[in-house]
Amino acid sequence: MIGVFTLKITKKQQSLPLSQVKINDGFWNKIQKLVQDVVIPFQADILEDIADVKDKSHAIRNFRIAAGEETGEFHGFPWQDTDVAKWLEAAAYSITIKPDTALEARMDEMIRLVAKAQRPDGYLNTFFDLKEPGKEWTNMRDWHELYTFGHMIEAGVAHHLATGKDSLLNVVVKLADYITNRFGPENEGKTRGYPGHQEVELALLRLYRITGKKEHLQTAKYFLDERGTEPNFFVEETRKHRPHEKHYGIENTKYNQSHEPVRQQKEAVGHSVRALYMYASMADLAAETGDEALYNACGSLMDNMLSKKMYITGGLGSTVHGEAFSPAYDLPNDIVYAETCASIAMCFFARRMLEIKPTGKIADVLERQLFNVVLASMQLDGKRFFYVNPLEVVPGIAGVAHTHRHVLPTRPNWFACACCPPNVARMLLSLGRYAWGEGENTVYSHFFLGGEAQFKAGGGVSISCKTGYPWDGNTCYTINNNAEFTFAIHMPSWCRNAKISVKNSEGSISVGASTNHLAANGLIYEFKDGYWYISGKWQSGDVVKITADLPVLHIYSHTAVSDNVGKVALQRGPIVYCFEEQDNSGNLAALRISPEKGVLEVQGDGIFDGAILLKMQGIRRENTLDELYSETKPAETPQELLAVPYFMWGNRTPGEMRVWMGI
Amino acid sequence: MIGVFTLKITKKQQSLPLSQVKINDGFWNKIQKLVQDVVIPFQADILEDIADVKDKSHAIRNFRIAAGEETGEFHGFPWQDTDVAKWLEAAAYSITIKPDTALEARMDEMIRLVAKAQRPDGYLNTFFDLKEPGKEWTNMRDWHELYTFGHMIEAGVAHHLATGKDSLLNVVVKLADYITNRFGPENEGKTRGYPGHQEVELALLRLYRITGKKEHLQTAKYFLDERGTEPNFFVEETRKHRPHEKHYGIENTKYNQSHEPVRQQKEAVGHSVRALYMYASMADLAAETGDEALYNACGSLMDNMLSKKMYITGGLGSTVHGEAFSPAYDLPNDIVYAETCASIAMCFFARRMLEIKPTGKIADVLERQLFNVVLASMQLDGKRFFYVNPLEVVPGIAGVAHTHRHVLPTRPNWFACACCPPNVARMLLSLGRYAWGEGENTVYSHFFLGGEAQFKAGGGVSISCKTGYPWDGNTCYTINNNAEFTFAIHMPSWCRNAKISVKNSEGSISVGASTNHLAANGLIYEFKDGYWYISGKWQSGDVVKITADLPVLHIYSHTAVSDNVGKVALQRGPIVYCFEEQDNSGNLAALRISPEKGVLEVQGDGIFDGAILLKMQGIRRENTLDELYSETKPAETPQELLAVPYFMWGNRTPGEMRVWMGI
Repeated sequence: MIGVFTLKITKKQQSLPLSQVKINDGFWNKIQKLVQDVVIPFQADILEDIADVKDKSHAIRNFRIAAGEETGEFHGFPWQDTDVAKWLEAAAYSITIKPDTALEARMDEMIRLVAKAQRPDGYLNTFFDLKEPGKEWTNMRDWHELYTFGHMIEAGVAHHLATGKDSLLNVVVKLADYITNRFGPENEGKTRGYPGHQEVELALLRLYRITGKKEHLQTAKYFLDERGTEPNFFVEETRKHRPHEKHYGIENTKYNQSHEPVRQQKEAVGHSVRALYMYASMADLAAETGDEALYNACGSLMDNMLSKKMYITGGLGSTVHGEAFSPAYDLPNDIVYAETCASIAMCFFARRMLEIKPTGKIADVLERQLFNVVLASMQLDGKRFFYVNPLEVVPGIAGVAHTHRHVLPTRPNWFACACCPPNVARMLLSLGRYAWGEGENTVYSHFFLGGEAQFKAGGGVSISCKTGYPWDGNTCYTINNNAEFTFAIHMPSWCRNAKISVKNSEGSISVGASTNHLAANGLIYEFKDGYWYISGKWQSGDVVKITADLPVLHIYSHTAVSDNVGKVALQRGPIVYCFEEQDNSGNLAALRISPEKGVLEVQGDGIFDGAILLKMQGIRRENTLDELYSETKPAETPQELLAVPYFMWGNRTPGEMRVWMGI
Repeated sequence: MIGVFTLKITKKQQSLPLSQVKINDGFWNKIQKLVQDVVIPFQADILEDIADVKDKSHAIRNFRIAAGEETGEFHGFPWQDTDVAKWLEAAAYSITIKPDTALEARMDEMIRLVAKAQRPDGYLNTFFDLKEPGKEWTNMRDWHELYTFGHMIEAGVAHHLATGKDSLLNVVVKLADYITNRFGPENEGKTRGYPGHQEVELALLRLYRITGKKEHLQTAKYFLDERGTEPNFFVEETRKHRPHEKHYGIENTKYNQSHEPVRQQKEAVGHSVRALYMYASMADLAAETGDEALYNACGSLMDNMLSKKMYITGGLGSTVHGEAFSPAYDLPNDIVYAETCASIAMCFFARRMLEIKPTGKIADVLERQLFNVVLASMQLDGKRFFYVNPLEVVPGIAGVAHTHRHVLPTRPNWFACACCPPNVARMLLSLGRYAWGEGENTVYSHFFLGGEAQFKAGGGVSISCKTGYPWDGNTCYTINNNAEFTFAIHMPSWCRNAKISVKNSEGSISVGASTNHLAANGLIYEFKDGYWYISGKWQSGDVVKITADLPVLHIYSHTAVSDNVGKVALQRGPIVYCFEEQDNSGNLAALRISPEKGVLEVQGDGIFDGAILLKMQGIRRENTLDELYSETKPAETPQELLAVPYFMWGNRTPGEMRVWMGI
């Protein structure tokens, strides 16, 4: 249980704009560099059809044709434009982190085409321009016009914030105005409707913060308010435009979360990415409007996922059928879905929930996503990406058996529907926004991220951070100005014996998390809901040190998850570990480990350079007979085992992988 | 490993005709009575659309319309006629066991309609008559004409053997002649082709034994010889008749086992019922023609299933996708398919393999099927049937989660495609043919079945059998004539400390299975391949006694079956046990049992009257926190557990069920 969400939403904390965060971090720098140096250019090459990949994207050519600069036919999905939008957003973050004129020029050229492809009335979608003109707004359920608009709006906001330019912002404001004018209450002369794939709600709220135009917020609110009301819009749309289609029932409306009004939703159901984009926008709107019913629904949904529907790796949406949430505790490790985009979307949701109420468990979830599924989705060379993130893979069954067709033992490269790779890029490059926040003269550190951040709080304080996280639990913050403010620091639940030490002109003090309230050293220390709050007058050079153990934890699953009973998973800090065939030979299911026995932390080398690997004495259970069933208990022989970080799996010769191990 | 099949097929043993077997058995009598008193009339009511079930069958009406005695439209699948055929076959067995003039009259009326619906040229299929005239033989892959013909031929044979009448035999001989004239080598002026769903091969071989017409055997052989040769017939048929259809590749030909010549097939693949019907016909043909290559293929396929692809309950075909075999060791307990018909088809295959070479392991498989999946498929009231036979069911996930939609926690009644229920009926009523066999002056008892059987061997010997099987391991055979012959008795591998005792005029002797060869008591005793062979001169009143323990066995699975590692299943005699929620409360996954601890056998009551149930001390693992993941090992509390025979599960309030238990 996360706790009952009864807080009045009276104040609000904002994540820090990316431009105010400098990252200088032993762990994240090389990942961001990889995304900037490899992923961003590689994905641009794909969008421009000059990369050496099997499935051509055609996304830029669609715009070029729509702009009248080339002839040809549309190619791809109705939402093909979003690949360009998501890349533009990621590229905007990239140049915020590190200016790059060549990249900016490449963006400018794309933006020029996008702008030219926009219709005079603001409508913008190359699929409808080139392939289905006249069919606009006849299938909002499946053709994702609003989703496509949303991603472009997000790109426009990001580009404007990164460059100060209005070239894409003007396009997306026109686009948002188009939506705003079209959709709304019928008694205002507008058209009823809401997106089949949520996303535009988030986008309009982001845009609203730039434009300040109430209509942008109102339309986001309208989409959320209208969703799930009777008569169901998609049922009506289907009846009107596709009368031949079979019955569209509750299962179908659950798929896109239009089965009940959003404020009444308590269980995470349906397509996981749709759901999580919606939850994120609900939290965003609740924060913006102080809507407690909306916030309470968000709390229930978060609670439902955390207590019944999330893999230990953070994976969400356990079934391939509809890429969807399954019933409570149905978390199979081998036929899992756990789409990368769902974990990214959970980061969106968690960040917005933290902005309303900093809560340790939610900040932990953010870390669980980032350090596991999100990172695991990307190959270490930045060129291939998992869409599906299994916790158990046996080649020959995974990817082969019909039930396991979608579970691949190696990362595929660009898919026809390339939702995940550019989503990973924009996530990893906007990391700064997730690490830091501020509000009401309080500065928040949601997770340990080396570098420096600049706040409005305390009249403009800057804080530097040095950290060995996630490999060690020591972090050191330095306050760079004299200022009076509260410094709030999240202490992840997996940090043990954690102490916070403050050294200032009045001396040094060291406090453990068991100390709820203390006034010392000229400051007031409080620990609540997973956060330390240290308030008072700070001076330039004051140092806040976190020292914490990161022991290897043997994690047990709730026994209602039938696949995990009698098993443990290894976790150290936020990082979940797995066993690979390369280190432990095949048939990993036959291995077992003993939680009572010690685990040795060893420094990795080669592709694991810099990482901590885990060595332990285990047992292999081996059949002495070749029979399927026998009275003979499989013989047990000791075997030294090695576990590696889950996020690094699948970067060697393809083989078996397994997270949950028998005990 | 079953052992290498290198035996020359020089002799052949036949299963005993049903008319020569009288069943008088504490276990089977009431099951056969249920099938005769409830299942057969209930299914006839369904076929005649007078039963109170949701899905109407329309099968008899189709014939009535085709016969010109009613107007209306065809309803059902292209193979709807087979429901009538399978019922007629089962009813024929029923009247063989117990004459019933009312039932025979009901059959006669159906047969009259069937005969009237046959075209003058012998063709018989109401779907093509009423719904798709002119489209005959344009889709042999999916429309199952030959499969439908095959079932009617089997019905004709069974009806003739049961009643001596020719009314249906004449129909099916015309039908078989039609096939025989049409299909065959193109250089003989015939049409190329073979069935999309195998079955007619078996049927033609059965008919051949009645008619003695070489063409009936030749056509069965042609279908098997032609299958899997290049160019693939279905690829050509698809190209010719459905050119718009997408690529029809190796995966599709594997589905119906046309991917390679049958003699080269070594791995069980594709649709499991298709596969097993084919394997049964291959064994049948091998026995008939002495074709060693065919027999060796059968051996490899049997070996492959037994060592890599069969559930402990006998279930075959682990995936719902194509109702098919999955890769080796992919035997999930919860998203299983394990169609009832596949287990019945395995009985067909095993019986035919035993006819060629009595082998203990194959006779064991026959028992495993009968006492587990086959019986489990039928509700104890005979009115509902499982098509899918899971080993783990959690209501709320089973039947609900998309991956588990097909896995129902309770038996459905009549399905639109009602393949399984009439198949169960014909299987259970023809049990006598599976229990006994004879050949070359040898009498075979393949499994213990109380009653009496009449053989040609020894100049016409009759043997009586009294048994407490499967609940106890004591069986007593009495020889009813003076005769010289070999008596071969299968000793199931799960019978322990088994002794065979013979009491005749020369005295008494008792021999254990460790005695390979012994001459004593005027007889010669040999034990090989799971069978005792006792040869010599018998006298009326000689008694052969089997005494064997049936201890409760803790069975371990091969560790390559990842779902079963660290688990055991309970088996006593041929009967696999399971745990149900009603006896052990919910979350069965959280329970574990200790193989070292004793198991108490208790007499069941209520629906379990007559059955042995198993009581034991177990452990429940329970979460102290409501968190999905925690460092706290679930608390362990002792709990008394009760296991019930798997074949009786799902006969009370719906709830959880589980076969494999953590240890």
